Amino acid sequence: MKTVLPERTVERLSLYRRILLNYQYLDHAYIFSHNLARFLKTNAATVRRDLMLIGVEGNLHKGYVISELVEKINEAIDPDRTEKVAFIGIGEFGRAVYEYFNQNDARLQVAATFRFGSQTSNQIEDIPCYNMVNLPTVINKSGIKICVVAVTLDYVKEISTILAHSGVLGILNFSSALLQLPPHIYVENYDMITKLEKIAYFMNKAGNISNQ
Amino acid sequence: MKTVLPERTVERLSLYRRILLNYQYLDHAYIFSHNLARFLKTNAATVRRDLMLIGVEGNLHKGYVISELVEKINEAIDPDRTEKVAFIGIGEFGRAVYEYFNQNDARLQVAATFRFGSQTSNQIEDIPCYNMVNLPTVINKSGIKICVVAVTLDYVKEISTILAHSGVLGILNFSSALLQLPPHIYVENYDMITKLEKIAYFMNKAGNISNQ
Repeated sequence: MKTVLPERTVERLSLYRRILLNYQYLDHAYIFSHNLARFLKTNAATVRRDLMLIGVEGNLHKGYVISELVEKINEAIDPDRTEKVAFIGIGEFGRAVYEYFNQNDARLQVAATFRFGSQTSNQIEDIPCYNMVNLPTVINKSGIKICVVAVTLDYVKEISTILAHSGVLGILNFSSALLQLPPHIYVENYDMITKLEKIAYFMNKAGNISNQ
Repeated sequence: MKTVLPERTVERLSLYRRILLNYQYLDHAYIFSHNLARFLKTNAATVRRDLMLIGVEGNLHKGYVISELVEKINEAIDPDRTEKVAFIGIGEFGRAVYEYFNQNDARLQVAATFRFGSQTSNQIEDIPCYNMVNLPTVINKSGIKICVVAVTLDYVKEISTILAHSGVLGILNFSSALLQLPPHIYVENYDMITKLEKIAYFMNKAGNISNQ
């Protein structure tokens, strides 16, 4: 098994790749570490260290070969097989990232969305939309391993229980409560309420702070 | 004008308040800094420093008076008047936070959602849902100051142009591209693609890393 990369490195590699995929349209073959660094508001040394970790070295005069870099990042961070992602409670959000994953031949695939209420089985783009009651069956049958969860507090406990025993291995949680999950599930939490309150605070103080 | 608090302090104050509001149901009148710290996985010294910044001191033997603490946090981070928030592209997400802001008499109010396509003016809960073409008019007429944006790449440029001159002061951006905005607008970016790729990477390596 390969060594496990640091969390921040994985995030940056994902960002480098996104930039490189755009950069390719410009017909450039090479890119310098300081150019990549500028996009991410980091420094060239960080970029070089990240790339060294995945076994890529640049040419002092030309920089990195873009196609090789993309390939090495694919090898380093992509899962070995296509992983299916489901969106629970925010189907529209699934559509917003569906496009990216589809265009770039990525190993992540938006496979299903789930919603509450009576409108079941509506398609959003090519993604089937199911009623929440079908969650356990669909996740199990379609081999979904990653779920993006954004449900209101009333449903957090119920959804946690379902996901805990579903075969799901990774969760991106946008609900305002923490999910109770067994330790084998990798969870990344995002708290929108806190971010909104932070924005409301700082937007009224423009001029006193540096933006972004 | 009051001194501007550090960004991380504002985020933590928002979280303290959320915890305290739940804690109140337990009929506790006091809370210790180390209890608050445990919820946030931080240390008691950080909590005490944050609270000192907003002028609250705890009692050595009893801790902090919860009701006073909530009030001081309200004073410190809430806007002076109610700010309206719109959700562009992810109405369902608006619903998920609507509940919280409504229950707690908060100064943030989910005021509108916008979607593409033919289904216009559908209500989600009590939040009106508009077609995207009405964005400039509605934002202007209803005095919306904060927008949560999650649109696909095709629309990023158009939405940026509209928001730049709309009177909006704060943006939470979930699109996978950066928005081109004038410096008086406070922007917080969230990159879902990166987080999904990170989850896909680490979930296959459970056991080698410490799980949150």
